[in-house]
Amino acid sequence: MADPQVPAGDPAAGPSKSELKKRQKALEKEQKAAEKAAKQQELALQQAAAEVDYATEFYGPLPLHQSQTRPGIPRVQISSLSARDGETVLFRARVQTSRAQGNKMVFLNLRQRADSVQALVTVTPEKVSKQMVKWTGALADESIVLVHGVVKKSPELIKSASVGDVEVLISQIHLISGIEGRLPFTLDDASRADTDEVPTEDGKAQQFSRVLLDTRLNNRVVDLRTQTNQAVFKLQSAIGDLFRQFLSSNGFIEIHSPKLQGAATESGASVFKVSYFKGSAFLAQSPQLAKQMAIAADFERVYEIGPVFRAEDSNTHRHLTEFMGLDLEMTIEEHYHEVMELLDGLFLSIFRGLKEKYQNEISIVGKQFPADENVKLTFRQAIDILVEDGVPRESLDDINKYDTDYFIIDKFPMELHPVSSDRLFVYLTYFTTQTLSNSYDFFMRGEEILSGAQRIHEPVLLAEKMRSKGVDPDSMKGYIDAFRMGCAPHGGGGIGLERVLMLFLKLNNIRRASMFPRDPKRLDP
Amino acid sequence: MADPQVPAGDPAAGPSKSELKKRQKALEKEQKAAEKAAKQQELALQQAAAEVDYATEFYGPLPLHQSQTRPGIPRVQISSLSARDGETVLFRARVQTSRAQGNKMVFLNLRQRADSVQALVTVTPEKVSKQMVKWTGALADESIVLVHGVVKKSPELIKSASVGDVEVLISQIHLISGIEGRLPFTLDDASRADTDEVPTEDGKAQQFSRVLLDTRLNNRVVDLRTQTNQAVFKLQSAIGDLFRQFLSSNGFIEIHSPKLQGAATESGASVFKVSYFKGSAFLAQSPQLAKQMAIAADFERVYEIGPVFRAEDSNTHRHLTEFMGLDLEMTIEEHYHEVMELLDGLFLSIFRGLKEKYQNEISIVGKQFPADENVKLTFRQAIDILVEDGVPRESLDDINKYDTDYFIIDKFPMELHPVSSDRLFVYLTYFTTQTLSNSYDFFMRGEEILSGAQRIHEPVLLAEKMRSKGVDPDSMKGYIDAFRMGCAPHGGGGIGLERVLMLFLKLNNIRRASMFPRDPKRLDP
Repeated sequence: MADPQVPAGDPAAGPSKSELKKRQKALEKEQKAAEKAAKQQELALQQAAAEVDYATEFYGPLPLHQSQTRPGIPRVQISSLSARDGETVLFRARVQTSRAQGNKMVFLNLRQRADSVQALVTVTPEKVSKQMVKWTGALADESIVLVHGVVKKSPELIKSASVGDVEVLISQIHLISGIEGRLPFTLDDASRADTDEVPTEDGKAQQFSRVLLDTRLNNRVVDLRTQTNQAVFKLQSAIGDLFRQFLSSNGFIEIHSPKLQGAATESGASVFKVSYFKGSAFLAQSPQLAKQMAIAADFERVYEIGPVFRAEDSNTHRHLTEFMGLDLEMTIEEHYHEVMELLDGLFLSIFRGLKEKYQNEISIVGKQFPADENVKLTFRQAIDILVEDGVPRESLDDINKYDTDYFIIDKFPMELHPVSSDRLFVYLTYFTTQTLSNSYDFFMRGEEILSGAQRIHEPVLLAEKMRSKGVDPDSMKGYIDAFRMGCAPHGGGGIGLERVLMLFLKLNNIRRASMFPRDPKRLDP
Repeated sequence: MADPQVPAGDPAAGPSKSELKKRQKALEKEQKAAEKAAKQQELALQQAAAEVDYATEFYGPLPLHQSQTRPGIPRVQISSLSARDGETVLFRARVQTSRAQGNKMVFLNLRQRADSVQALVTVTPEKVSKQMVKWTGALADESIVLVHGVVKKSPELIKSASVGDVEVLISQIHLISGIEGRLPFTLDDASRADTDEVPTEDGKAQQFSRVLLDTRLNNRVVDLRTQTNQAVFKLQSAIGDLFRQFLSSNGFIEIHSPKLQGAATESGASVFKVSYFKGSAFLAQSPQLAKQMAIAADFERVYEIGPVFRAEDSNTHRHLTEFMGLDLEMTIEEHYHEVMELLDGLFLSIFRGLKEKYQNEISIVGKQFPADENVKLTFRQAIDILVEDGVPRESLDDINKYDTDYFIIDKFPMELHPVSSDRLFVYLTYFTTQTLSNSYDFFMRGEEILSGAQRIHEPVLLAEKMRSKGVDPDSMKGYIDAFRMGCAPHGGGGIGLERVLMLFLKLNNIRRASMFPRDPKRLDP
């Protein structure tokens, strides 16, 4: 079709030749301009493409880690960054939080265990693109990233990070593992003390949102990531180490006794029953039998760290159906006080060790669970409580005072050891008179952390005592037989690991001291 | 009454006065003699009485030990006696054997744990009576006595005692705990190697009486008293210590995961079911789930020492229904070989530690369980066995050789990991291709002592793999959820403590490496 704007040649009213040339030139000019514009546009597009491209290798998700290569590039710990000013480093970390500042900069709080550092990505020609910044800002909290960057002294201390004197200028950031769905709660919320408050505009205090214990336990894997919990379980591990070190240096060896038992030591109600091939077995309520048999087998001094199972339907702040028992048993030369003194030395060694070597972890936990003077029980208060319970004050002379939080009651008055079904077996193995027993209980902040006793090593007396309480000695033949073949006088005790940890750190609920706690209503996760 | 021998005066036939005087004198003489004899007899009786008495305080049974006094007299260890020549010592020990020499001397072999010394009681005026010697000679083997005596250099080395350069001259010996009934076997019989032989008069070798493994296990408390078993369980304790020391110095913390699980990870057949209040629970077959969840919770490097339960009806020399698992799990930076190398370092550290620090215990065990070259598997033999099993020889290039007893197989060929019911869960968590897996197995003397792998940390792939094998991912929701909240690449492995101990010491049956073993037929003692 002819162009209506360029009339066809009409000799009667047609433009002059010069006019045509002019038009021709203008047309050429337009064409050139269009070409130039197209070129410029192409260039702009190329530039735009280049703006995406120049950082693509520096960010984005990594392929699923299947150990396909091993370049051998060293990775560092966040805790070491203060000493690496100016270094280019590579490390893996969680994104605890991210905060965009405009569209050209993102601040990240990066975390490893209980350590965190501030990092930032900022648009830099040919290095960090706007797209890279945008992608980084969109990373979900708790994503795991591999970060490459330069450590730089921070102009001022960054309070939100545990390593606050440096920050990391990110040059590369890749996603190792992302989040599917929503976090059940933020780690900031999970890390707050119950007493944390912020003043609002009208001057009234407003509390932060709380994470309930049940919500935490239902999502324990996320809950365990808080600085507080990282410290709690480092301290749990430390208590085990200190327990072993003290006993090992005092001539003890570690034993492992079976948790599957042929007979129930206690009344059926408090023992878990297991289907065992065509018969039944029971879960050990305590390693006491095995420890005593190890003494009858001449091991002299033994300890065990292992699970203890209690089928008691107790839903309190201090009961678990499965907990870790730190147990020991030793021969006695002259007097059971030898055992009591060793246990006392053990506790003091554990507490001293924790305070000396783990001050950092203790103070981390202290921020979320501050000292609550109300849970403390003074020595005088303890005595008063016992007297109120009907114990003659003069019979409490044997209580050894150490400090207000930790004390020992020797010759435990029988009134305070009522022979309940779950105590029957322990009671049967004591030496007792009508009112006193060769036993001792250790208390911390008003709660029992250890009970122990000199055991009866004489089979005839033991069998008699069992019969007097309606327990058939034949039901525990293997145990009594051990003493028939000669056994040295001995005693021991058992400590609940979670209970000591809870009381030492004032966690107020034993579930917080167990990685994956079990109670009558909880078997998962 | 008149004395018939002294006739009454008869005037007709009466004796003369002088005769009478003579008789009188004779009578007086006789009376004096009688008195003297009576006195002598009394003296003799007194002397005889004194012979009984003069040692009564030096021997006999002690009253039942109930911690009534605490004199504070130091007691010594038999192991320290070599350095105490000339000292008067007090110690508690077992009577391993006693041998009378005439009726004036008794030799005792006294034992504490793995140490023994010769002692003797010999009649000594005013100190050791014949009665004391007789009583001592009648003490049953395995009685526990409190001995007071003087240490004396022995004229020649006493081969029957571990402390052979001294002996103890007993001045006092009291019974602390006796034996009721008969010992099931003597400790000498229980301590013999299977290869021990004595030549008889006709020149043929005659074997000593053997104690069968079942008899030992039925009377485990007595069996455990042998020097061999004292050493075996000291070494078991040592392996745990070396395991922890290595991992602790490599940044690991110890965790404790629950053995009571809400869901069975494997097919019901190989998992023990527990009555849990009004519902059911299952005993953990492995701490793998919990370890992996600890990694998802950012603990980075964790280990656990705890019981593992397997409801497999396997009655072999190497299966137990309950054994101690030494487990670890760690994040991976670049390649799962990081885990494999750490595990390799761990084993070498354990073996080196045992050889360096426990040479005495190893050689004690070696006397009863000597090196049997037949149980050794050379590297070449191991390869040959794998090739016979159908593995192409060229695919075995990745086997790392260390020495003839210990080697690692990397990228374990899938053919050798048949997906049996008890392996299904482990298999599901591997990264695998059609023929190879990101897994490794460690062997010792031809038997597996560790298996481990890089785990799948990506929840979608993990769920897919489960479904492909007919496992409903919802049945393990808590586990998969842990990975949905982001998880670092990781791997780990598990070691059976008793299996390593059995193979290291060539005990030939895993029951010998467990203090109170549990198998499908044994729940007691």
